[in-house]
Amino acid sequence: MSECIDSRAFRHITYGLYIVCSIHEGKKNGQIANTVFQVTANPPRIAVSINKENLTHEYISNSGLFSVSVLDESAPMKFIGAFGFRCGRDIDKFSFCSEVKVGETGCPIVMDYVLSVIETRVFNSVDVGTHTVFFADVISAEMLREGEPLTYAYYHEVKKGRSPKNAPTYEAHVNKEE
Amino acid sequence: MSECIDSRAFRHITYGLYIVCSIHEGKKNGQIANTVFQVTANPPRIAVSINKENLTHEYISNSGLFSVSVLDESAPMKFIGAFGFRCGRDIDKFSFCSEVKVGETGCPIVMDYVLSVIETRVFNSVDVGTHTVFFADVISAEMLREGEPLTYAYYHEVKKGRSPKNAPTYEAHVNKEE
Repeated sequence: MSECIDSRAFRHITYGLYIVCSIHEGKKNGQIANTVFQVTANPPRIAVSINKENLTHEYISNSGLFSVSVLDESAPMKFIGAFGFRCGRDIDKFSFCSEVKVGETGCPIVMDYVLSVIETRVFNSVDVGTHTVFFADVISAEMLREGEPLTYAYYHEVKKGRSPKNAPTYEAHVNKEE
Repeated sequence: MSECIDSRAFRHITYGLYIVCSIHEGKKNGQIANTVFQVTANPPRIAVSINKENLTHEYISNSGLFSVSVLDESAPMKFIGAFGFRCGRDIDKFSFCSEVKVGETGCPIVMDYVLSVIETRVFNSVDVGTHTVFFADVISAEMLREGEPLTYAYYHEVKKGRSPKNAPTYEAHVNKEE
């Protein structure tokens, strides 16, 4: 990395924490993502950055479908860890959930520790190197309840969580120190 | 909007608040943005969604340059309002600043009420309808000091701020009620 780039600057960018799920040919998976954001209000469209090595990336690329569940501050570390640090090739992540809804596209939507859920269909994607950014039309969106969204800052500072190595915001030395 | 889409769900997505500046043929402008996010860690790359009607959009499209200044919670509403609700065609927004740095690309970088600054060069962009999402390589990044980044939630809930109509997250009825 260039000497002019102090990666600590990126830590001041604010994110939430989300479970992004997808389905392809009946196979389902989900993962933690922090880079979900709305790109237009009318029509409602969102974007997410997903690492190419992740199983969820494979499913989204193939089916063009994903859902977003907005986590709240009560989400336990064990639950976040199951979706963030385990691979769907090894375990059934949904076995850690008490409620998984099936959206109108067939995509699974995690309902545990969640404030809002959004179901989408991809209309474009951009290769940005290690990750793909998927752009999607919102098919359905539901607010389940009021509450405090889990922020990435809260996850790090209060819950003492780490970033998985495939996160867009991963810093090797930061995680090593923890 | 579809009956299946409750736009209140989008309010649970977490954002920071940033000043995004650009320059084109010596003309400078800046605006408030909430949708800045890192898309890859290695190399460091970020993205931002900008409304096509905005002057900053014109400058970024032409020069491929923009900077990001991460605001902290102390940023006064008058300062945010100058960059968020005024048009650079009518006023010189930088007259509201006490310090504006010139980056190595020539791009202006606002230094007031700021925790970190990032200077970038666009490598790709995607038309998403009312907005363009610009993808950029980070040229330089500097952390100026520790502090609490201004979040979009804090701006709305504590500072009682509104969203300008060109925001990716604008909701007409929400702003009308305020």
